[in-house]
Amino acid sequence: MQPLANAMPANDESISLPTGASSAREVRQAARAGRLSGHTSGLASAHVQGNLVILPQAYAGDFLRFCQANPKPCPLLGVTEAGDPSLPALGEDIDLRSDLPRYRVWRGGELVDEPTDVRTLWRDDMVGFVIGCSFTFEHALLAEGIALRHVAHGRNVAMYRTGLQTVPAGPFSGPLVVSMRPLRAADAIRAVQITSRFPAVHGAPVHLGDPALIGIRDIGRPEYGDAVETMPDELPVFWACGVTPQAALAAARLPLAITHAPGAMLVTDLPHHRLAAL
Amino acid sequence: MQPLANAMPANDESISLPTGASSAREVRQAARAGRLSGHTSGLASAHVQGNLVILPQAYAGDFLRFCQANPKPCPLLGVTEAGDPSLPALGEDIDLRSDLPRYRVWRGGELVDEPTDVRTLWRDDMVGFVIGCSFTFEHALLAEGIALRHVAHGRNVAMYRTGLQTVPAGPFSGPLVVSMRPLRAADAIRAVQITSRFPAVHGAPVHLGDPALIGIRDIGRPEYGDAVETMPDELPVFWACGVTPQAALAAARLPLAITHAPGAMLVTDLPHHRLAAL
Repeated sequence: MQPLANAMPANDESISLPTGASSAREVRQAARAGRLSGHTSGLASAHVQGNLVILPQAYAGDFLRFCQANPKPCPLLGVTEAGDPSLPALGEDIDLRSDLPRYRVWRGGELVDEPTDVRTLWRDDMVGFVIGCSFTFEHALLAEGIALRHVAHGRNVAMYRTGLQTVPAGPFSGPLVVSMRPLRAADAIRAVQITSRFPAVHGAPVHLGDPALIGIRDIGRPEYGDAVETMPDELPVFWACGVTPQAALAAARLPLAITHAPGAMLVTDLPHHRLAAL
Repeated sequence: MQPLANAMPANDESISLPTGASSAREVRQAARAGRLSGHTSGLASAHVQGNLVILPQAYAGDFLRFCQANPKPCPLLGVTEAGDPSLPALGEDIDLRSDLPRYRVWRGGELVDEPTDVRTLWRDDMVGFVIGCSFTFEHALLAEGIALRHVAHGRNVAMYRTGLQTVPAGPFSGPLVVSMRPLRAADAIRAVQITSRFPAVHGAPVHLGDPALIGIRDIGRPEYGDAVETMPDELPVFWACGVTPQAALAAARLPLAITHAPGAMLVTDLPHHRLAAL
């Protein structure tokens, strides 16, 4: 299996998309027009972003079961009709074949291409899945005054394969992958409360404290993303991560699968607060 | 200041109150009639129990401010009119002077008596305060399948004075006292969620993990209650505790104050779920 690299092409130098207040639709249109091919972090920042998985219908049922059985790492925000690349519940005029800045194409579990659209690969039997991403709960944590070190340092969050196994479904299986954010205990408690409100974007943490208890051998060496220091008065706090389904997908070695490229997400029309369960 | 001992007279051997399903009113009537002088743990177990504080009105305003400024250790369930020992909001026919199995009488901060009723001490200027107690959230934790070691062992919960200070009000001040329950991380996260629903009975934990970070020097030596072991795969989880206002009260050395005796609580008519905020 190809490792999920963190390398991301920079956005075209010519583009100057407004951040924050820019509309989600503008971001999608820029991606569709080829004016945006980099990451979506910070773009249309009031809006939910999602992970993308596109599969032939023959595998869609198993993948749907996999997500249903593993809702913390694989919270489904939307699933398309076979052959229909739109997802009106997540945004006006979404076309999953073109509206993400960059894609990854997998054949037999190997990464074979990173195109900026996948119109030529789309078929009548393709099904698109959009899975919640931690940007929404990070937005909620930051809004409540909880500082996140990887955000402050402009890095990717640290992610680890754990010794915990997902519930398998058909060809999809593998370890739970978690993201880690170091927090002081009072903030960790508050973070449990805040992220519990967002089950559609991984919800509450799955673990906190000793990393070895969930099979993480070296907290200083994440399998994905960037390492971040945990201070003596902090606990590492672990959330289920959307890399879990991507790793399961790569391990399944399907003849063809398409995902977003890391960091180049689908920007939806949903404001973050629409995902708050209470 | 007199230490708050854990010694508790056993119930009269003649009494056989039904546990669990017994009505709260029956428990109060048994206390009122002198048939119950021991602890209330396990009695009318579907109902909220509360800590009691009775003060002369001259100090009631400051104590009310103390509770308002420190809602986690001092969640007020009810406050009486001066001179009126009833509290209809908490139960039919409650008489705070007689309906608890045993009381403590404090003069100048010293424990001077442990009577089974305080009718002779009551005056027209007395104000009663009922403060939420952890029995309700423990009931909710147990109902969700979270085992509590001190309950399984039939012991009192371990309680510690911390290095955290309450917000003072008039003569009332002092350290935050916390109770500790050891839990595995996944249960600790679930316990944050469950107890967050019950702000009227101390709510979410105030700390978890390293006890030294909140000024607890020796986890093996609680200042109140019984020590309990924390296993290698567990974290100590700390909640604000209703001993906090009692310690503040004793330290204030008022000419006269009355409290419940430890474990001999007011049993109210409120079912536990009535205190769930959501």
